[in-house]
Amino acid sequence: MTLMELWFTEEHTKNVRFSIKVDKQLVSRQGDFQRIDVFETKEFGKVLTLDGFLMVTEKDEFIYHEMITHVPMAVNPDIKKVLVIGAGDGGTIRELTRYEKVERIDMVEIDREVVAVCKEYLPQTACKLEDERVHIHYEDGLKFVRKPVNEYDLIIVDSTDPFGPGEGLFTKEFYGNCFKALTERGILINQHESPYYENDLKAMQRAHKHIKSAFPISTVYQMHIPTYPSGHWLFGFASKGLSPTKDLNAEKWNGLGLKTKYYNTNLHLGAFALPNYVMELLEESSL
Amino acid sequence: MTLMELWFTEEHTKNVRFSIKVDKQLVSRQGDFQRIDVFETKEFGKVLTLDGFLMVTEKDEFIYHEMITHVPMAVNPDIKKVLVIGAGDGGTIRELTRYEKVERIDMVEIDREVVAVCKEYLPQTACKLEDERVHIHYEDGLKFVRKPVNEYDLIIVDSTDPFGPGEGLFTKEFYGNCFKALTERGILINQHESPYYENDLKAMQRAHKHIKSAFPISTVYQMHIPTYPSGHWLFGFASKGLSPTKDLNAEKWNGLGLKTKYYNTNLHLGAFALPNYVMELLEESSL
Amino acid sequence: MTLMELWFTEEHTKNVRFSIKVDKQLVSRQGDFQRIDVFETKEFGKVLTLDGFLMVTEKDEFIYHEMITHVPMAVNPDIKKVLVIGAGDGGTIRELTRYEKVERIDMVEIDREVVAVCKEYLPQTACKLEDERVHIHYEDGLKFVRKPVNEYDLIIVDSTDPFGPGEGLFTKEFYGNCFKALTERGILINQHESPYYENDLKAMQRAHKHIKSAFPISTVYQMHIPTYPSGHWLFGFASKGLSPTKDLNAEKWNGLGLKTKYYNTNLHLGAFALPNYVMELLEESSL
Amino acid sequence: MTLMELWFTEEHTKNVRFSIKVDKQLVSRQGDFQRIDVFETKEFGKVLTLDGFLMVTEKDEFIYHEMITHVPMAVNPDIKKVLVIGAGDGGTIRELTRYEKVERIDMVEIDREVVAVCKEYLPQTACKLEDERVHIHYEDGLKFVRKPVNEYDLIIVDSTDPFGPGEGLFTKEFYGNCFKALTERGILINQHESPYYENDLKAMQRAHKHIKSAFPISTVYQMHIPTYPSGHWLFGFASKGLSPTKDLNAEKWNGLGLKTKYYNTNLHLGAFALPNYVMELLEESSL
Repeated sequence: MTLMELWFTEEHTKNVRFSIKVDKQLVSRQGDFQRIDVFETKEFGKVLTLDGFLMVTEKDEFIYHEMITHVPMAVNPDIKKVLVIGAGDGGTIRELTRYEKVERIDMVEIDREVVAVCKEYLPQTACKLEDERVHIHYEDGLKFVRKPVNEYDLIIVDSTDPFGPGEGLFTKEFYGNCFKALTERGILINQHESPYYENDLKAMQRAHKHIKSAFPISTVYQMHIPTYPSGHWLFGFASKGLSPTKDLNAEKWNGLGLKTKYYNTNLHLGAFALPNYVMELLEESSL
Repeated sequence: MTLMELWFTEEHTKNVRFSIKVDKQLVSRQGDFQRIDVFETKEFGKVLTLDGFLMVTEKDEFIYHEMITHVPMAVNPDIKKVLVIGAGDGGTIRELTRYEKVERIDMVEIDREVVAVCKEYLPQTACKLEDERVHIHYEDGLKFVRKPVNEYDLIIVDSTDPFGPGEGLFTKEFYGNCFKALTERGILINQHESPYYENDLKAMQRAHKHIKSAFPISTVYQMHIPTYPSGHWLFGFASKGLSPTKDLNAEKWNGLGLKTKYYNTNLHLGAFALPNYVMELLEESSL
Repeated sequence: MTLMELWFTEEHTKNVRFSIKVDKQLVSRQGDFQRIDVFETKEFGKVLTLDGFLMVTEKDEFIYHEMITHVPMAVNPDIKKVLVIGAGDGGTIRELTRYEKVERIDMVEIDREVVAVCKEYLPQTACKLEDERVHIHYEDGLKFVRKPVNEYDLIIVDSTDPFGPGEGLFTKEFYGNCFKALTERGILINQHESPYYENDLKAMQRAHKHIKSAFPISTVYQMHIPTYPSGHWLFGFASKGLSPTKDLNAEKWNGLGLKTKYYNTNLHLGAFALPNYVMELLEESSL
Repeated sequence: MTLMELWFTEEHTKNVRFSIKVDKQLVSRQGDFQRIDVFETKEFGKVLTLDGFLMVTEKDEFIYHEMITHVPMAVNPDIKKVLVIGAGDGGTIRELTRYEKVERIDMVEIDREVVAVCKEYLPQTACKLEDERVHIHYEDGLKFVRKPVNEYDLIIVDSTDPFGPGEGLFTKEFYGNCFKALTERGILINQHESPYYENDLKAMQRAHKHIKSAFPISTVYQMHIPTYPSGHWLFGFASKGLSPTKDLNAEKWNGLGLKTKYYNTNLHLGAFALPNYVMELLEESSL
């Protein structure tokens, strides 16, 4: 006999539902920007959702957070100053703080409430938000990025989906400002949605089009995130000159001795080898 | 107003459900070995299920069928004789018949009814089952493979999951017979489940252990199949000597001019670059 | 292991879902007026849905069809001529044909396809549609009822819900025409929705208001139909003079010796004893 | 855009699911006897579940609680001493305390935690648990009822379903002790499950058989509870001599001027008029 049938469902499309059995709802808060929930689940451990969209699960967040940080850090292990936009759960910060050479991380998160909830309920990701190199700015990332010039070696746009609070982060103006804010060897990494379901692939194409118009080098890499729609997820890699593959400094990165669960330097190269249909979608978006 | 709420649900685990909205059930037949259903859906086109497990969708079958065939064919473009076990939907056959050099394909499918249903309802995959090089044997693959010696250049085990009719295809004895049936440059490709959910990863480990004990070279490669549990799917590549990466004959394969939607020779290499946690699971299974 | 998870779901409200496990979809047809489906289910036997709304199940259709016919027939066992509007499944006709005194039944069903499907897949209800006293008119009931004057002893409005094809059957003009078409001892019975969920209770109030303005006697009676939203279902009883309770001719009806599974003459009286909140909703609607 | 798809589902049978959209889980507690949850929902207000079974909703609890109390109180308005078994939510107590003549109510609830949760989250039902006539005993009702002899004018068994903590309350021994504990004009009311789904109707038959063997007068009455399986719910009425219909003291009860939302003295009589199939199930159970 089942003791409780309580299910969180995300509609991946109007015709596809992904449902997770919930043991218990740990918190539900209506913030100024979005509704924030944390669930306890058997399959995925704690699960964070924003406005009903799954953001982070304890079971597979390592994939997202390793891939969004170690890929640029292995291309340029000398990165010192990082700007992270979004990322209220802290997972990206956790991975970045593992690099001793990183001197300062500016984290710009619009929703103070998300950080508060994650500190309380998701220590697995939020554990390094108190690191002294981390400076949290509770502001709109869109505005924040207008000011700095030639300042950051790395910008990570760890945003929610391109509707709701994260909407502006997928525009041309925004990516232009990112370019300006980056140093000569600067890298921009962004959450890039997925190539599979209609709405996701349109967001992917839109983002790619805008980044490509702002950066000389712009590509995407892929990974498996089972709890995201289709499980086929992309991040964008853009730069003023560094190539994500040719400039990979595998030896140096491996010399750091960082233990990872998903990322390695072979997989780094493999992740940039995209299926034909994804390459075609990206090309199409640039027309 | 929604005209019909009819949903097919697959339980990826007891705590995870994946649901597809169904327009119409096209056929439902209880065969001698399994229940066979085909659904019409908005998101995925026609969907074939066996005993309630999703096997093939028109939207993403190309990923499965390209990856199960072109990977070995690009390592050894001179393959002439192929044994395919399972594969009643015909998708694997469709891809194999694109190679002119392939002279004979023995397809061993235990369930005659699956082939009949696919011919009628899934011409997209079943379109080449009448090719004159294809010889269909309605037999148990487990038994069929006991006889041939040094006969096939390629064996593809395109099986269902390791319970029900496909169960025996995941045993040590079976893989030993495959080895014997292969020629000197022979390759074995097998459906290898997934590393993410508990039951799938155990099946993956079991299969890997048995293949490794029979073949000197044995590894796995990964792809994104959004409609399979977790979307992170693996195939096994085993051989008597050929390496899936070092022996990749990219130039020759690209010279064939085959148009593909997922596969390409860069992705071929990338697919063998596995995440750390998958490599650890595989190593663990060999202990 | 479950062999197939295929579920039909009806949204009783945006926040309430009722789901039935389906063994097999027997037919799905898009008619001129609505989509028609029949499902095979373990719990309810065959289930008929129109535009995704559950209409009839083999398990509990007897409740609906006994209550829509025997209540008026027990008040006036001399009924000879009956007009039935809707009722394409045939269940109401089946019950009416049990009365030898009934001489003629005009059945007006707008959708020829529904009758065809029910004859093929639902013989349990459609079994008496060939009775020689039954005359089927494939017309709009709304128009049909404009012509007859002082002709029918009983009109049964066995309609679908008040949206889609059944919409016009819930209007004032329609009920006025019904009054005109009835004889002096005429009775109008109508499907009257439910008092529980918001949308249903508004339809109930609207229908009651319109019938009350056309008939001197107008009340409702209740029953338990587990597969309808809330399970609390109502029919309307209106007449030119006959009281549904004081004029109940229990002795005569019981003398007919009809075997029923739900209806009896005690329950007849009990069905008109409504909960306070239902009476208040009805009164409110007349204001 | 939907902000949160969180659904509580009760399996009415293996083939029927009833699902309620949840805004928020207010509390989830594992007590000594059962898991206790309260949900906030749009459709039903607050919903209490025990071990995943829906017990009380703010929207329709009035039906249950009015019918379990006013039926016996209208048959014998002179009831002074009442034993209530179960009823931790307090709804039955709330209705009983409306009678000035009632002098003492012994409430025996095995699970102290249920009472605590309801006091905090369900004041709508728990509001009268502090009435000075109410004496709460946190004990097993099965044991409690062994002691009293000729003491109570009314026993109400407001139990959960006949599995889990409520199991013993459906046995022969238990009903025999109830008989002994009642005064000459004593009445026993019990939650009697439903006649519709297989498991419920078997519980109904079992309970009826046991009560009938202990009491000279034993019958059941029905009501509409939309959130319970099938919506067709039964309570048992047993007594040492009083008839639930012939002894109804409608005049006296109506003289009390109690305002009710479901119950009235006409409906009281109507509720005992059962469908044929329910009467047959009850007769069958006595064989």
